[in-house]
Amino acid sequence: MTKKEGPINIGIIVSPQFGAIDIFGVYTVFGVPPFIGLRPDINVHFIGKNLEEFNAIPPWPMRATTTFKDCPQPLDVLAIGAQPPSFMDDDEAMDFVAEAGSSASYLIGICDGALTLGAAGLLKGYKATCSFHSINHLSLTGAIPTRGHVVVDRNRYTSGPVIGAYDASLMVLGELCGLDVARELELHLEHLSEPPFGVGRPELAGDELTKIAFERVQPFAKDGHERIAAACSRRGI
Amino acid sequence: MTKKEGPINIGIIVSPQFGAIDIFGVYTVFGVPPFIGLRPDINVHFIGKNLEEFNAIPPWPMRATTTFKDCPQPLDVLAIGAQPPSFMDDDEAMDFVAEAGSSASYLIGICDGALTLGAAGLLKGYKATCSFHSINHLSLTGAIPTRGHVVVDRNRYTSGPVIGAYDASLMVLGELCGLDVARELELHLEHLSEPPFGVGRPELAGDELTKIAFERVQPFAKDGHERIAAACSRRGI
Repeated sequence: MTKKEGPINIGIIVSPQFGAIDIFGVYTVFGVPPFIGLRPDINVHFIGKNLEEFNAIPPWPMRATTTFKDCPQPLDVLAIGAQPPSFMDDDEAMDFVAEAGSSASYLIGICDGALTLGAAGLLKGYKATCSFHSINHLSLTGAIPTRGHVVVDRNRYTSGPVIGAYDASLMVLGELCGLDVARELELHLEHLSEPPFGVGRPELAGDELTKIAFERVQPFAKDGHERIAAACSRRGI
Repeated sequence: MTKKEGPINIGIIVSPQFGAIDIFGVYTVFGVPPFIGLRPDINVHFIGKNLEEFNAIPPWPMRATTTFKDCPQPLDVLAIGAQPPSFMDDDEAMDFVAEAGSSASYLIGICDGALTLGAAGLLKGYKATCSFHSINHLSLTGAIPTRGHVVVDRNRYTSGPVIGAYDASLMVLGELCGLDVARELELHLEHLSEPPFGVGRPELAGDELTKIAFERVQPFAKDGHERIAAACSRRGI
């Protein structure tokens, strides 16, 4: 625990066609405390290549609040969720992740965002997780693929999609601002899900549903391994 | 269960300074199925007064994709989270909620969005819930305040903040598209939270933390009862 005095800067990577669903938890957990006076001095930055409007996937018109060039550094937290395939081919973007990620106090990688952290060289020798659809690609980045809801190794927090971002962010908020702040926020958010079907993990869903789920994403996932391998190779990871 | 054939239109109310955190679950649950080919014909609309960029609370520049005037009706789902106090004073906005809500197949009210549904006359005689901070205001709208994670009464689904939107939306997705679709989505999303502190309800947090939480929001909440009462009175609810 390294409780931080003074302003806290949270950076969330955004890009056209990025998976906005993965970073909602980061925005919520770090964005709400200043608004309710629980911890006034947290600044959440959406960091992108520029400030032009873009559409997330699923479609939602939004934009960044700062750029790779103008973002304050070092960040207290750098968070990243799933990005479009083109992100890993973009040297400006990947250089930013590598540099800002090296100096940030904490890293949060949600879903395939963990693969991007890995391809930026930030997970070598670290235990990490991501979506069950793509966890097998993690070893390409030098990470140690580890199943778990939120996998913590030193200052790296990684999780599966969407909901894991809330839990990982609450854990990091506790580290940065103290457990009293993080516990109180968990209560304000009434953060206790009751999944209606209880199949939110392959081991709960069973083989048949898991097979259907794997086949569903096959058209999008089939070149994933080669793509991650190429990105790592290109950057010497 | 009234499984729907053909296109499904989901409407999410947005407004300047609205609580974006409450509708992420609706966007995620209905937005992802078309993207992965699970159910191609779901359209998610962000409905606002106009298409100008605004900031949510916490700050995030975004905008609506359609307007009260242009939004397709009847909607299959009308969803609303916490809005700024000015929303209930805006006749155009409240008229839209009342009209679109009357014809929608399902209503989802998250956190204080349930109060807005109520002030629009849509919860008279319905069991409903919202944030534990404001559940006592619900009876002003003619609703029957009911503690619960997601409270379902006929086609009205209400919940506390943030996380309840995911669970309520998965339940409605199951109604509209079938349980097979909703179960598979729950798996893709790995929707199973592990709250790090286990205090996401007043009864779990205990009296001391709950008292601190109540006091924290007192500056924002203190005129809530009068404000809801005035809005209901003005609209004859």
